[in-house]
Amino acid sequence: MTTIKDSVHDHIAVEGVAEALLETPPVQRLRRVKQLGTVTLVYPSANHTRFEHSLGVYYLAARALSHLGIEGQQAERVRAATLLHDVGHCPYSHNVEELVHRKTGKYHDDVHEILDTGEVARVLTEHGLNPDRVADLVAGDGELGQLVSGELDVDRMDYLVRDAHHTGVPYGTIDHERLVRELSFVDGELVLDEGNVQTAESLLLARALMNPTVYQHHVARIAKSMLRRGTERLLTATNATASDLRRWDDADLLVRLRRCDETAEYARRLSERDLYKRAVWAERTAVPDELLDADHRDVRAMEHSIADEANVDHDSVVLDVPAEPSMTESSSRVLVNGEIRRLSDQSTLVNAIRAAQRDQWRLGVYAPEADSDRVGDVAIRELGLDLDGARVRDVRPGIHATLDEFN
Amino acid sequence: MTTIKDSVHDHIAVEGVAEALLETPPVQRLRRVKQLGTVTLVYPSANHTRFEHSLGVYYLAARALSHLGIEGQQAERVRAATLLHDVGHCPYSHNVEELVHRKTGKYHDDVHEILDTGEVARVLTEHGLNPDRVADLVAGDGELGQLVSGELDVDRMDYLVRDAHHTGVPYGTIDHERLVRELSFVDGELVLDEGNVQTAESLLLARALMNPTVYQHHVARIAKSMLRRGTERLLTATNATASDLRRWDDADLLVRLRRCDETAEYARRLSERDLYKRAVWAERTAVPDELLDADHRDVRAMEHSIADEANVDHDSVVLDVPAEPSMTESSSRVLVNGEIRRLSDQSTLVNAIRAAQRDQWRLGVYAPEADSDRVGDVAIRELGLDLDGARVRDVRPGIHATLDEFN
Amino acid sequence: MTTIKDSVHDHIAVEGVAEALLETPPVQRLRRVKQLGTVTLVYPSANHTRFEHSLGVYYLAARALSHLGIEGQQAERVRAATLLHDVGHCPYSHNVEELVHRKTGKYHDDVHEILDTGEVARVLTEHGLNPDRVADLVAGDGELGQLVSGELDVDRMDYLVRDAHHTGVPYGTIDHERLVRELSFVDGELVLDEGNVQTAESLLLARALMNPTVYQHHVARIAKSMLRRGTERLLTATNATASDLRRWDDADLLVRLRRCDETAEYARRLSERDLYKRAVWAERTAVPDELLDADHRDVRAMEHSIADEANVDHDSVVLDVPAEPSMTESSSRVLVNGEIRRLSDQSTLVNAIRAAQRDQWRLGVYAPEADSDRVGDVAIRELGLDLDGARVRDVRPGIHATLDEFN
Amino acid sequence: MTTIKDSVHDHIAVEGVAEALLETPPVQRLRRVKQLGTVTLVYPSANHTRFEHSLGVYYLAARALSHLGIEGQQAERVRAATLLHDVGHCPYSHNVEELVHRKTGKYHDDVHEILDTGEVARVLTEHGLNPDRVADLVAGDGELGQLVSGELDVDRMDYLVRDAHHTGVPYGTIDHERLVRELSFVDGELVLDEGNVQTAESLLLARALMNPTVYQHHVARIAKSMLRRGTERLLTATNATASDLRRWDDADLLVRLRRCDETAEYARRLSERDLYKRAVWAERTAVPDELLDADHRDVRAMEHSIADEANVDHDSVVLDVPAEPSMTESSSRVLVNGEIRRLSDQSTLVNAIRAAQRDQWRLGVYAPEADSDRVGDVAIRELGLDLDGARVRDVRPGIHATLDEFN
Repeated sequence: MTTIKDSVHDHIAVEGVAEALLETPPVQRLRRVKQLGTVTLVYPSANHTRFEHSLGVYYLAARALSHLGIEGQQAERVRAATLLHDVGHCPYSHNVEELVHRKTGKYHDDVHEILDTGEVARVLTEHGLNPDRVADLVAGDGELGQLVSGELDVDRMDYLVRDAHHTGVPYGTIDHERLVRELSFVDGELVLDEGNVQTAESLLLARALMNPTVYQHHVARIAKSMLRRGTERLLTATNATASDLRRWDDADLLVRLRRCDETAEYARRLSERDLYKRAVWAERTAVPDELLDADHRDVRAMEHSIADEANVDHDSVVLDVPAEPSMTESSSRVLVNGEIRRLSDQSTLVNAIRAAQRDQWRLGVYAPEADSDRVGDVAIRELGLDLDGARVRDVRPGIHATLDEFN
Repeated sequence: MTTIKDSVHDHIAVEGVAEALLETPPVQRLRRVKQLGTVTLVYPSANHTRFEHSLGVYYLAARALSHLGIEGQQAERVRAATLLHDVGHCPYSHNVEELVHRKTGKYHDDVHEILDTGEVARVLTEHGLNPDRVADLVAGDGELGQLVSGELDVDRMDYLVRDAHHTGVPYGTIDHERLVRELSFVDGELVLDEGNVQTAESLLLARALMNPTVYQHHVARIAKSMLRRGTERLLTATNATASDLRRWDDADLLVRLRRCDETAEYARRLSERDLYKRAVWAERTAVPDELLDADHRDVRAMEHSIADEANVDHDSVVLDVPAEPSMTESSSRVLVNGEIRRLSDQSTLVNAIRAAQRDQWRLGVYAPEADSDRVGDVAIRELGLDLDGARVRDVRPGIHATLDEFN
Repeated sequence: MTTIKDSVHDHIAVEGVAEALLETPPVQRLRRVKQLGTVTLVYPSANHTRFEHSLGVYYLAARALSHLGIEGQQAERVRAATLLHDVGHCPYSHNVEELVHRKTGKYHDDVHEILDTGEVARVLTEHGLNPDRVADLVAGDGELGQLVSGELDVDRMDYLVRDAHHTGVPYGTIDHERLVRELSFVDGELVLDEGNVQTAESLLLARALMNPTVYQHHVARIAKSMLRRGTERLLTATNATASDLRRWDDADLLVRLRRCDETAEYARRLSERDLYKRAVWAERTAVPDELLDADHRDVRAMEHSIADEANVDHDSVVLDVPAEPSMTESSSRVLVNGEIRRLSDQSTLVNAIRAAQRDQWRLGVYAPEADSDRVGDVAIRELGLDLDGARVRDVRPGIHATLDEFN
Repeated sequence: MTTIKDSVHDHIAVEGVAEALLETPPVQRLRRVKQLGTVTLVYPSANHTRFEHSLGVYYLAARALSHLGIEGQQAERVRAATLLHDVGHCPYSHNVEELVHRKTGKYHDDVHEILDTGEVARVLTEHGLNPDRVADLVAGDGELGQLVSGELDVDRMDYLVRDAHHTGVPYGTIDHERLVRELSFVDGELVLDEGNVQTAESLLLARALMNPTVYQHHVARIAKSMLRRGTERLLTATNATASDLRRWDDADLLVRLRRCDETAEYARRLSERDLYKRAVWAERTAVPDELLDADHRDVRAMEHSIADEANVDHDSVVLDVPAEPSMTESSSRVLVNGEIRRLSDQSTLVNAIRAAQRDQWRLGVYAPEADSDRVGDVAIRELGLDLDGARVRDVRPGIHATLDEFN
């Protein structure tokens, strides 16, 4: 047994297949992939990695399994899945994920690819586990998959608490120990026991407050969009594939961006925190519906036509259209008077939060400060935005919990 | 200058009039009045006092004043008011407050009485402060009164964080430093600066989660109701007045309850945590509107008629009808695009939380375990409750963050 | 199973005999006995109780037993002992302990008396446990007794962390989880495993820093001495016995002190923090050895003769001669290269800390402020102190982590 | 004014010259230099950076200056110095420092070079500050230099608390706010005020416990030695200078190590945590004195001759001879009865800790696992170690607070 000291959960005992997995290169690589990517440009203490998060998820899963009375190979499989659930992540975490998904298809397949080969597959097999079934758990398939990836999964419980600890923003400090203790399986569904409607709500609220304050902070979004644009150009310029990207760590990607002529300026800007500014920041109601359906190619084309029209370099316009807000937690299930109910049917808060998330949604167009006004004017016209003359609308902005935002 | 170490805000420097007030008996008495009264029967670590809370409120006020640029006598007056804001509290904090208010009228008057006489008045006057004007601030009157008692007051900010720290329930951990930094006065109104809609919401949400989990936990409510009943009998039996009560500390009240024949059994039950059980626990929709208008006397009469009908002792029926849920924070004001707006006009969450609070509201009838069923049946009939056959309805119960609730 | 939320260890699951013991009056009484007695007059947040501490000790014992692989009745007995280890404490914790011991003999006997009778005995017996054998564990007897009361006991681990949490003084924050994981039994002795010399030292250092800063803070000592004197007079004046005292809680004692003519002034001073001042504060080298052997009666006689000589009331002189500093932890055992060694043989720090504790030792004579100088002069003469003219010598004072010390 | 949220000190307000310095590339580079280098291989949560540490030091300095009543340009200079005090650090923090110092001379000169040129010099000059005088403060010169780099500097206060927060090892949690409040200048010397002998001791003890547990953990030392060896080879192989090295960040160095044939294997081993093992681990008494005087070249020569004798590759032997333990804090000054005294003259603990540090000192020889025994035997002979037959002596090992040490 290996015991690892963690700043969030204190001592984490790792044993069995998980202990052996710890030593594999794909798991060790997670030490060099930041959990929150560009968020560190807003919250400088947020340098925690996918490695410690994976350990935390493993720890919470182990506690949940023990409370649920699940043992043996079934439990080993879940513990393996939690330690491996992030090995498919690209450098800077989610930041370039969409990029890769657009190129390779489902994340699910990528995970299968990594788990089915090399040292990870060897370790799993040696411990009597089928890599494919572990990958299924990572994808949230099957009854126990709900624990690894679902509305009430331990992934979410760890990252909220951990991100709160490292950013200093308190909103994510949920009562994870209570959540883990109150889980149970009823008719194959993972539910929270009687008396936990508000426990479920607290999870939802924590994410609802962390979202605008941390995950969707506009400075982090600008940096992330620039990183995504740079990475895309890098892959094209160097003939690298998405599968290559998935093997790099943060250092690999950053140095490659620096060394490639087409992307060196993006790299410099990210390193020196000399970021683009918001030329447009438009709320949902100002944006034509069809823009939300635009794929990767369409976005690129729009950027180019805005740039051409504004007479700036193609690299100087970055268009950032987030997906419509999802709210996975709203379909988490709770036991109420003996019946399983969806939280959204039970809680008056769910719809309010859904509305709030829609209110907070923003489309962004970013450009170097000097070009920002010009690009903004053109973009509004080209994208058909309805902004009442204002270029940057911030009627209901996120909590700027830090002012480390020269933007 | 006196520096005091506090487990929540670390070092608190106390100077000027506040330092002198620290030594007065009414302020020292707060050391012996628990902040959360009977909540310690649910959360055993929650033994913090009004004294440390008052210091915390003083500290946050001092920081807010410094950010607001308010100095001199005006600031001294606010600082004095924060240190004194709880001197009018009865033993076990809010628990017997309603009882006293019903007898003596407004809390406001009581505060005037305490501040206008004795050592407190002497100290205030010596420092050039008019006790009456300090009492006005405590009552929330005037522009600066908003800081002491209002929608965005520092009282609320301290107690949420402090109660979270001591109960171990994380929901109250707001970003108080951010709140204090973002306050400003616009046209005589205390508001949160631009970009703080969610800062305001976070305060509201923190209280919305702490309410059922901590402040309104049913075990704390049962104990509080028993304490209130016992105290009322004690005052009658011993010819003590509300004004006497206000001078006692927790020890005085507890020992008096023990020594008075009429209340010794209540005292024993509270000391040994041998509490009454819920005979009825009815949601808002099951309760006739007129019951909510019942005053003190009416409640007593209903208890007696239930007891008589159920053939139990008068002391064995306790009826607990909470006020309709208020939500002071919903009218806190935020700056949005240069305009002052009420949070409730700006936030989709406010109405949802109001609805949630109404959902959580419960009328309780409590009785000794052996009489509980009988009393429940009678009470439903006598009070005209519409409960579909169930005596205890807990469709949307509070978060029982602790299971230290043998009830 | 009952789960209780604790501000230090989060969720504590209580089961078996411990769950039943929780409901007994002697355990519930601990809710109303402060852990640190008069220390709250220095650190106002330190209002935690023997009850939550006992739960914490129970929790750490349960973890240690699980790591040690000890199960069944043997483990039940230890868990019962940890929950009961403080039921013999007087109000205000250790403060009046010496007083009682002088009257009744060993603490050990008192514990037997409480455990062998009433509800506690009934619960223990119902769970198949012999009350006497549980009392032996509380006294530290036998192999497993070391875990309950010994150099490496879980009592010490909980109180250091808990007192740090509630006072705000960080020095007590040891790595208790590591300590609990590294315990093992070798040849019937409780030891720390290989590689833990410094783990053992850290425990020693934590107490060495907490001692002068918290436990022996001079303001806490003055208040404690006044309380002890008052209590002694109370017992005499009211014909109460030590056994009565042991059944009271903090409220009982405080109110009794208030109501007894002989002690009302002490009670007022303690309540209003209007404490005596140091008339003498003498280091070890200035004190004749025979003074340290003085028993209770001798001390009282010296106080009286000082008072008479100084022409003040007998109650106005309080002499406080602490025992010579002990350092239990120095004989804790660690495994080094396969051998069991005493920490004091292994660690260069142990002797240094012993010397430091001797340096910090102080004899105190306390008196009302107005009499302080006069009493000091007389006391130096009467006690034969060698103070080079200085009345209060503070060559190496404790850390006054708080300045909440008007003394 | 910019306000930055920090996970240790909460909100840090940055203004004046410091705010402008924040945007310079040398300060932004610190975001990509880990504070504890290879320690993250032992404590996976320890990924904090020089950037957040520099902000923390700035914050503590600002508080100290305010308590000391120092204002104006003098204060601005100190604040600038604290934000800049680490800009001269190589990637992976101290890890390769010795390497550079051996090549370029004093760190002092390097700091002058960075502060005297480019954007930093421009910003300083624009704010009326002389870069050379700021560099002097960084070097600890002058009265105020003691605050930036000295026995009682704010650097030490921040890193102890921050490293404790991020590793999860509690020993570093000093009472920094008290330290900052108790500083004063007496006759040009920075001292702690009366009553703070133990405050000073607590600083010393914190470092004494963090040293073996964190900073000198053997796994971190092995990785650091491998990194140093690899970096040295890289500079030679690629004709890079120490001055180049000082401009790289962690990513630059890591990727360069990977891409250079001579160092790729070191890079792989560090990335996959496939570290060398201890072939020898010898305490101070077993090591001939002359070995401690060996310079860089001598060490290299010894490694080669061991490798040749053991018939392994030159890269397979790494010799790690730490400097004799220093204890800067022991000469910190405290006021005692009005006189300034050195802590070492006042505190019985200082000499004990000095002895303990000498006890903990270890010389290491590291090699790949397969070669470890052979290399150990040869090394003992070649280096003239007196080890009584044992190769790895761990008579008094550090606290292995984590077992994440497969070594």
